[in-house]
Amino acid sequence: MKRIAILTSGGDAPGMNAALRAVVRTGILRGHRIFAFFNGFKGIIDNESAEMYNRSVGDILTRGGTIIGTSRVPEFLKPEVQKLAARNFELLEMDGLIVIGGDGSFRGAVDLGKFGVPIIGLPGTIDNDLNGTDNTIGFDTAVDTVLDSIRKVRDTASSHHRTIIVEVMGRRSGWIALKAGLAGGAEAIIVPEMPFDLEDLTHRLESGLARGKKHSIVVIAEGVMTANELSQKMAEKMGFTSNTVVLGYVQRGGSPTANDIILASKLGARAVDEIAGGKSDAMVGEIKGEVVVTPFDEVLAEHSIIDPNLYHLAMDLVH
Amino acid sequence: MKRIAILTSGGDAPGMNAALRAVVRTGILRGHRIFAFFNGFKGIIDNESAEMYNRSVGDILTRGGTIIGTSRVPEFLKPEVQKLAARNFELLEMDGLIVIGGDGSFRGAVDLGKFGVPIIGLPGTIDNDLNGTDNTIGFDTAVDTVLDSIRKVRDTASSHHRTIIVEVMGRRSGWIALKAGLAGGAEAIIVPEMPFDLEDLTHRLESGLARGKKHSIVVIAEGVMTANELSQKMAEKMGFTSNTVVLGYVQRGGSPTANDIILASKLGARAVDEIAGGKSDAMVGEIKGEVVVTPFDEVLAEHSIIDPNLYHLAMDLVH
Amino acid sequence: MKRIAILTSGGDAPGMNAALRAVVRTGILRGHRIFAFFNGFKGIIDNESAEMYNRSVGDILTRGGTIIGTSRVPEFLKPEVQKLAARNFELLEMDGLIVIGGDGSFRGAVDLGKFGVPIIGLPGTIDNDLNGTDNTIGFDTAVDTVLDSIRKVRDTASSHHRTIIVEVMGRRSGWIALKAGLAGGAEAIIVPEMPFDLEDLTHRLESGLARGKKHSIVVIAEGVMTANELSQKMAEKMGFTSNTVVLGYVQRGGSPTANDIILASKLGARAVDEIAGGKSDAMVGEIKGEVVVTPFDEVLAEHSIIDPNLYHLAMDLVH
Amino acid sequence: MKRIAILTSGGDAPGMNAALRAVVRTGILRGHRIFAFFNGFKGIIDNESAEMYNRSVGDILTRGGTIIGTSRVPEFLKPEVQKLAARNFELLEMDGLIVIGGDGSFRGAVDLGKFGVPIIGLPGTIDNDLNGTDNTIGFDTAVDTVLDSIRKVRDTASSHHRTIIVEVMGRRSGWIALKAGLAGGAEAIIVPEMPFDLEDLTHRLESGLARGKKHSIVVIAEGVMTANELSQKMAEKMGFTSNTVVLGYVQRGGSPTANDIILASKLGARAVDEIAGGKSDAMVGEIKGEVVVTPFDEVLAEHSIIDPNLYHLAMDLVH
Repeated sequence: MKRIAILTSGGDAPGMNAALRAVVRTGILRGHRIFAFFNGFKGIIDNESAEMYNRSVGDILTRGGTIIGTSRVPEFLKPEVQKLAARNFELLEMDGLIVIGGDGSFRGAVDLGKFGVPIIGLPGTIDNDLNGTDNTIGFDTAVDTVLDSIRKVRDTASSHHRTIIVEVMGRRSGWIALKAGLAGGAEAIIVPEMPFDLEDLTHRLESGLARGKKHSIVVIAEGVMTANELSQKMAEKMGFTSNTVVLGYVQRGGSPTANDIILASKLGARAVDEIAGGKSDAMVGEIKGEVVVTPFDEVLAEHSIIDPNLYHLAMDLVH
Repeated sequence: MKRIAILTSGGDAPGMNAALRAVVRTGILRGHRIFAFFNGFKGIIDNESAEMYNRSVGDILTRGGTIIGTSRVPEFLKPEVQKLAARNFELLEMDGLIVIGGDGSFRGAVDLGKFGVPIIGLPGTIDNDLNGTDNTIGFDTAVDTVLDSIRKVRDTASSHHRTIIVEVMGRRSGWIALKAGLAGGAEAIIVPEMPFDLEDLTHRLESGLARGKKHSIVVIAEGVMTANELSQKMAEKMGFTSNTVVLGYVQRGGSPTANDIILASKLGARAVDEIAGGKSDAMVGEIKGEVVVTPFDEVLAEHSIIDPNLYHLAMDLVH
Repeated sequence: MKRIAILTSGGDAPGMNAALRAVVRTGILRGHRIFAFFNGFKGIIDNESAEMYNRSVGDILTRGGTIIGTSRVPEFLKPEVQKLAARNFELLEMDGLIVIGGDGSFRGAVDLGKFGVPIIGLPGTIDNDLNGTDNTIGFDTAVDTVLDSIRKVRDTASSHHRTIIVEVMGRRSGWIALKAGLAGGAEAIIVPEMPFDLEDLTHRLESGLARGKKHSIVVIAEGVMTANELSQKMAEKMGFTSNTVVLGYVQRGGSPTANDIILASKLGARAVDEIAGGKSDAMVGEIKGEVVVTPFDEVLAEHSIIDPNLYHLAMDLVH
Repeated sequence: MKRIAILTSGGDAPGMNAALRAVVRTGILRGHRIFAFFNGFKGIIDNESAEMYNRSVGDILTRGGTIIGTSRVPEFLKPEVQKLAARNFELLEMDGLIVIGGDGSFRGAVDLGKFGVPIIGLPGTIDNDLNGTDNTIGFDTAVDTVLDSIRKVRDTASSHHRTIIVEVMGRRSGWIALKAGLAGGAEAIIVPEMPFDLEDLTHRLESGLARGKKHSIVVIAEGVMTANELSQKMAEKMGFTSNTVVLGYVQRGGSPTANDIILASKLGARAVDEIAGGKSDAMVGEIKGEVVVTPFDEVLAEHSIIDPNLYHLAMDLVH
């Protein structure tokens, strides 16, 4: 029997609750005791935690967000705060910690690990920008949410024969923009990973309209520039008019897709076995259908970038 | 047999296609011939039109936007352009025109009517800001779209214990904000029709969080100020932190609700009978379940404002 | 200060939770104490109840079903059981009871009322078959759920050039079939209120296919016959092939629409005032936009039937 | 330049239109001419076809079903019919055929191939029962559609403390049942691939209710038995009461998910290159993220079965 703690950290993502449920129920099934820290690393610092039972995670499977709360804790960068957290962790006689979050959360985990806390990470972020897993928990849902918004925006773009620029999340990675843009038939997809030329883009859009296209949708990842900046640049430099939509937090919410729930369930169950088996300083992910464990330093060495073939396919199919 | 033309004008709204279908099919059933002008009043000016048949409006009932296009035509304010349009209308030997749009479109209709074109209006705008009808075509769908977004945003607000301000459409009217805000359980709803005090609002939100509320959602109609302006004001004057989401064009799209399709169908069918019966210069709407006809000058005299009782109910229910 | 109890009864309907929330929060705001009986009238018989607070109804506004449970209690037809319930009610020193349900529940309420329990009803059923209100709580959501299913079924009907019969709820009333059928562009809508001829129907469908229609959707209310029966009859008597879908319980679930939440909120708030003001033996509903109170005997005298004009409109628009 | 034909066959599936678009646009981009046969193999027999252009497949990307129609053609089992089809194919001077469908369609393709028609298959079926691909086009969407229905049914099951059995598609394979059941938190999942004991199942459900579970959902693949049969057996042999829902054709419809659109786009583009490159008698699929080509005889040798680990995970997580 081990005492295993779990927390969710950073931006919330659909499927975090499913991961929590999988950790709690698998843990209890294996004979462990499971505890949740509330509101991310803040919960360790403030000593806010509770034991979790099978019933604690009933009826949360298909709910968005995270019922145990999450936060970003800038002060966690300070070694003295990390030390305090490690101390609290030890006083609670915990044997290990499971952290669901993105790269920022894992950097915090690495820091905390140096004070002796065994930690396994689960990739929970809609951005899909992590090494060590093909998909992060929340990404699949976010893509379908964005796709749904693109469909709605297209009704207006079509009716008015307009170009509408849709700004989506993705600071470092264009995965959301690429998948939702490809699936939504966007005329252009602008991502951090691929070069982009304002003149080319504008000509492409103009020639589409000239060929009789009723509408143009441009999807841009926030990491490149804002939709407003792009729209202004196209107007100033090319005299091309466009409208903008910034999807914002809507992308993070909603009931998770089956894929996200299942991925979260698989990885959550495995995380229990890894932490109970003494593994630490690593993230559990899924690559090519296999659950795999990747050391944090590899996960954090660089971030996942989009598949250029998929980008070129998207461009090939828009005529 | 009459030759009846139809056009959609101004911002697109879900249900415009259903209204078009009702006009076309009812018209043909009554023995008339129906023609569509494309892209709003622009289609009359540019003489772009086509005859519509039963099959022309097949498979469009549940599609958002408008298949015959819409536009805003600032030049239509000029009498010489109106005269040209009236001339084109006459040359095509049309007997009457049905205009689906909002108040701007109806002002154009009144102007065109002065040159002898008989016009019946249909209320097509998501804003629900028109006199002469309880609901405009598109409003019901927009409210449910906004409600769905509020639900998604609430997942993030809950998970992070944050206040998120959601900016929705409604320049003159707070209907979308009020209905979606009430239905979404928003802690505060800010509309043009009701006074609003920054200090009160902030205290209300702070006391909610102090009472243990996990999240606060504020819904604001764009006509009051932008979400960003509100957020900055609360930060500067009250030291209160919040995040923002601007829903934008997403609100206009999507498959119409059953209510919007049915309203559009009822009003469209009646518009045919009115225009064929010689009625002009009036809008067909629905008040308390009855289809009614209201002269344009009454429709345009003032705009519809929210029901204050509903606003107070919303505030009563948020504790 | 009054002690007011509430229960949900009969088939669950989206918006019941919103009504519960409105009763609880309005009640507390007015200075009353509110109690819930669990699982309908069963909760009074078994003495299962709990006091409700503002927090008890947090986060339930947009959830389907009813968090306080519901049931059908055949034994409640027996006077001795009613007497027992009235006794329990009195022992708890309750001043009044609010019952959310349909006609069966209101008959139970009338019976219980004879033993001295003051009762106000709220119309909670997806069927929209009650006098005294234009819409029952849950009806609007059910119509959009059915419409969504019709859209999905139409993809298959189109792709295979098939006729698909969709069976929807509605034992006594064709409201769901009519509104969803009209909005979904169904080629035929079969409801208890309107005569229906097998031969006519089949000819209508055949001639549509002959004219080149890619698909036919028939919507039938369960109260007329099952989809299977209709399909078999068309096959046996007319040699006409069709497929069937029975939507079943899916129609009852889902997040309520804004309309249902708002209707539930309005009626719930008013029910508190009525019961606290000494009113009894009546249902709170909304007619033509006004909240009204109708005695149970009028509500139960006959049931609401569809608007024949809407039916004829639907048929006019399908060519 | 090759003349490449395409058809969709068997049950329709979301994403077929996306595959069609990818074939048409990739084909034209590579310099080929693309033709569609309408309504599956029937189109070859009846010689109903048309050339497809970039514009022919505009605006279909996110639409369910297949715009070129599909059918099941039992007569295609006869060699003389196959010969006729091959003759028609030759007379049109086609160089190759792309068939989107399931195993029945591929058997037809193998037969037709014997008469000299080069054929490449694309896996288009919601059932996910094909070797040679991890996911069939349409499967991902169907799982989310079923999950959505399970969520709705759960509202009623919860409110009434009932057990509801949901029957889903899957004659040979339990994939839909397993993924949607796991994601929906179903208490039991009954699939063709796993043994199932009536007594065990009933005890499991009873003990869940005894532990205080508010509801039980059982998901059953139609290939095992109907929901009605199961419900009756549980009633007769174990005295256990349950309700049933049969999802039926609703599962096949709806806008495809981003995953299905992207899979269809990838495979469609590759199919063009394979058929143009002289490949035949094989299906293009995706395994572990790689697009692969598998001979029809391997695809048809046996069918894909569920991952037992996923099944056990589902059962582990339901307490």
